[in-house]
Amino acid sequence: MPYRAPVPEITFCLEHVVGYARVTETDRFSDATPETVSALLTEAGRICEEVLAPLNRAGDLHPTTLENGVVRTPPGYAEGYRAIAEAGFAAITADPHYGGLGLPQTVATAVNEMMGSACLALQMNPLMTQGQIEALEHHASDEIKALYLPKLTSGEWCGTMNLTEPQAGSDVGALKTRAEPKGDGTYAITGQKIYISWGDNDFTENVCHLVLARLPDGAPGTKGISLFLVPKRIPDADGTPGIANSLKVVSLEHKLGLHGSPTCVMQYEGATGWLVGEPHGGIAAMFTMMNNARLGVGVHGLSIAEAATQHALAYAADRVQGRSPIENGTGTILDHADVRRMLTGMKAETFAARALALDLAVSIDLANVTGDPAMTARAAVLTPICKAYGTDTGISVADTGIQVHGGMGFIEETGAAQFYRDGRVSAIYEGTNGIQAMDLTGRKMMDGGVAAHALIDEIEAEAKAAGARGALLVATAGELRAATDRMLSLDLNDRFAGAVPYQHAFALALGGLYHLRAAQAEGEGPRTRLAQSFMARQMAAVPGLLAEAGLGAADLYALSPEDLVA
Amino acid sequence: MPYRAPVPEITFCLEHVVGYARVTETDRFSDATPETVSALLTEAGRICEEVLAPLNRAGDLHPTTLENGVVRTPPGYAEGYRAIAEAGFAAITADPHYGGLGLPQTVATAVNEMMGSACLALQMNPLMTQGQIEALEHHASDEIKALYLPKLTSGEWCGTMNLTEPQAGSDVGALKTRAEPKGDGTYAITGQKIYISWGDNDFTENVCHLVLARLPDGAPGTKGISLFLVPKRIPDADGTPGIANSLKVVSLEHKLGLHGSPTCVMQYEGATGWLVGEPHGGIAAMFTMMNNARLGVGVHGLSIAEAATQHALAYAADRVQGRSPIENGTGTILDHADVRRMLTGMKAETFAARALALDLAVSIDLANVTGDPAMTARAAVLTPICKAYGTDTGISVADTGIQVHGGMGFIEETGAAQFYRDGRVSAIYEGTNGIQAMDLTGRKMMDGGVAAHALIDEIEAEAKAAGARGALLVATAGELRAATDRMLSLDLNDRFAGAVPYQHAFALALGGLYHLRAAQAEGEGPRTRLAQSFMARQMAAVPGLLAEAGLGAADLYALSPEDLVA
Repeated sequence: MPYRAPVPEITFCLEHVVGYARVTETDRFSDATPETVSALLTEAGRICEEVLAPLNRAGDLHPTTLENGVVRTPPGYAEGYRAIAEAGFAAITADPHYGGLGLPQTVATAVNEMMGSACLALQMNPLMTQGQIEALEHHASDEIKALYLPKLTSGEWCGTMNLTEPQAGSDVGALKTRAEPKGDGTYAITGQKIYISWGDNDFTENVCHLVLARLPDGAPGTKGISLFLVPKRIPDADGTPGIANSLKVVSLEHKLGLHGSPTCVMQYEGATGWLVGEPHGGIAAMFTMMNNARLGVGVHGLSIAEAATQHALAYAADRVQGRSPIENGTGTILDHADVRRMLTGMKAETFAARALALDLAVSIDLANVTGDPAMTARAAVLTPICKAYGTDTGISVADTGIQVHGGMGFIEETGAAQFYRDGRVSAIYEGTNGIQAMDLTGRKMMDGGVAAHALIDEIEAEAKAAGARGALLVATAGELRAATDRMLSLDLNDRFAGAVPYQHAFALALGGLYHLRAAQAEGEGPRTRLAQSFMARQMAAVPGLLAEAGLGAADLYALSPEDLVA
Repeated sequence: MPYRAPVPEITFCLEHVVGYARVTETDRFSDATPETVSALLTEAGRICEEVLAPLNRAGDLHPTTLENGVVRTPPGYAEGYRAIAEAGFAAITADPHYGGLGLPQTVATAVNEMMGSACLALQMNPLMTQGQIEALEHHASDEIKALYLPKLTSGEWCGTMNLTEPQAGSDVGALKTRAEPKGDGTYAITGQKIYISWGDNDFTENVCHLVLARLPDGAPGTKGISLFLVPKRIPDADGTPGIANSLKVVSLEHKLGLHGSPTCVMQYEGATGWLVGEPHGGIAAMFTMMNNARLGVGVHGLSIAEAATQHALAYAADRVQGRSPIENGTGTILDHADVRRMLTGMKAETFAARALALDLAVSIDLANVTGDPAMTARAAVLTPICKAYGTDTGISVADTGIQVHGGMGFIEETGAAQFYRDGRVSAIYEGTNGIQAMDLTGRKMMDGGVAAHALIDEIEAEAKAAGARGALLVATAGELRAATDRMLSLDLNDRFAGAVPYQHAFALALGGLYHLRAAQAEGEGPRTRLAQSFMARQMAAVPGLLAEAGLGAADLYALSPEDLVA
């Protein structure tokens, strides 16, 4: 069924759930009024429905290929990309001075959601460019900014991130790519990078790679890593791409999903690069992008969840099968309690994932504008939770979507299976969800749990204020607080043994908060009933998750590797 | 990594967890001693490792095709099938009088597990034949038995099941295929059937279809359905296949997984068929097969879980990444607590799924031999739980297996993604897991919950007898009993609204029982530690599942279809 952009749902969430008005109240974003945002989201929704969504299956059926060193993208992707670029969606938050739209991250998040639902494989391209623009704005020299940013914001060029190497995945500090000063202010970059999303294409004039590499005097580990800008074709002073740089796409990966997105092995053979930021400051530069990148990938999961939910609802509302178990039913499988349970859960979790992403985006915007350390800390805690819950939700909702389809769910033509395949990697890239959980329970609790407790207090206070309606959530907040204190009492590796279930429980408590806010804004109605269902059903998992969260690692290490393999 | 048949693990489970000795003690299976079974499993394991496992990826890369009406199977499948047929694995339980091995269902279950781990797409072929042989043994005339069974048990011919039609999936009573008496004792079968696994192949001399169809005087619904045997080529009295019957494969489905297994749309155009069983007795005949078929599909999930666990363990034990968080670690990602958590959980759930399948198989064998109604009822309750938990476990373990692989998990060459794709349909076919849950909480509780309570009493009694080691399980059994009583107090549709989480909780309690038995048999050691981990971690989900189980349907129907779509 065709994708329908959920603009009214997003607008409701901005207004009533995540307090977007606080962003508009800042001087910097005073122009980004609800009316302006609504108009932009409506236009974005139209592009997603009419231009991008029709490309989704084509990209799956006609994977990107590598022909004689040239990446060939699926039919229609070039036109789809052009629509994205012309609308400015590769540069939503970018500085207007360089051609960006200058809008809040919150707005970018909403647009990214819709682009991702419509065609996730293509959406990854502007998402990468958004990240690159942000990195250059923060860390590049004025010359580089002047030369590159206008091309990137216009979409004439696009950007990539080059971190991973075969031996350096989650452990980025193990990378071996070298950068040798050439004496003219540039560097010769040599090494191999893997898993490079959109490492090349056949529809932009140039491709700009941000590459992590080590200078000759770079220390081992993450502290000796620097960041370089390495264009596919070297531009002259006017920004006209000239000679080809010494880099190439060696091969494309054959993937479970996202067939339209080229995942490249890149080879740099003395390619000319420009330093971005300070020598040995590469990791710091990457970290400034990391929050937004993790939000962006959390949104991938949301995109899949929304699309899969719409798809399954449309199928169920059309599928006549068996005697209806209820009076005055529709006569479709929607009448069956278990089908209702599945679809209601999909909708409730998708709502929570969206609210979590937009809440995080609002916090990022407010932190960026106000510099308020509490808001920065709030965003820091929400980031891993959003990344993990968004992507876990995308995967589980797509899985349930297949189940709603019955036998048709296993048939590729139906489309349900593509969401399942496309979404799976989101729990892995940009830091696996296990890494997110380690971040949440390790680095993000180095404040002694202050920021985590502040969020729990926020949940509990609103739940208490809501009276009977918030009773389940009050209890959940209490359980989460106790589990957080337990976490803080453990050493790091014992925390890590329970970090994933802890992270999931935290997300469900936040989901309860967002549902409660929606219910409170509505009074009585479907949102309120959905909220009650979420709290009774999805949140019921919290005590079990938290019980596991506090177990520590002893039982796991009690089984040796030999025991496991035996 | 190459598949390693877990014969010692299966043997342990037979001996110490599911009481296989009780089967050997019956007159009928007195020859199927542990020694005989062990020898057969060892040989089966060898075939699976050496002959079948190498075909798994080939079948994925080279899907079965339909060329000018002829089904072409992947390279090597013909040889793989021959090895299966020569070993007698299409006829493990079949009557030796007709060439079967005459072994218990328990042995077939163990062999089916290993064949499914090695190459699930091919395993489905002998699994279908096993089911057909059983149906013919119970319901066919002596003439049909004499003509067909020797060919099926030898594997010269193979069998299929034809139930589903486009408008008749879960609601099989809606089928439209017609059977007209031809006056010579045969019938002309006309209609279209879909989702026919192994509807044709290029390596057996004949393909025998069991087809559900309606006689001219057949009532609407399930009561008017009859069962027919419809061979691809009509055999003469000596069993030599002669002229082609009026049936054909119209098309093959493009599926998420199981690419090597042809899923056919079959067209019958006045094809000659022979009645099997009584007129209008088709559903009854199908029901006699259903227990074993659901066990067989539950085992599909087990097969995937075992293979995915082996695969992920091998990867993790080889993957060096990052600083080890523990002293005297392996230096691989196995040292990380979250990776341990994932792998330990995979292993613990796979163990539970295997024990559940073998426990059910033993109950089926004992019920068949002794006719003990309590044993029949025990098998009846275990059947939906085994089917759903086995397949849910296959899917979730394969999902976790991808996560263990990190970025490599998304790359098809790695193999982790194939398990994820191949296993997904198992939660759908042979009755979706939602249908299983309705069976468990509806039909299987028509005895007022006697059989369910008997299982819960069994769990509780053994847990109590185990002292401190069983304490968690005693609590779980108590919660399950309370939830069962709550279920029984609800009307059917309110049960169905919580049937899936109830079914899952029941399976986890049984899993706790099997782990406890393993621990008790061992005393102290890795099985005991795995059992403790399962009870502390996996079983922690039970209270939340049971809380949802008892909610009834009201909150779900409170959201109208319009509310859901909005």
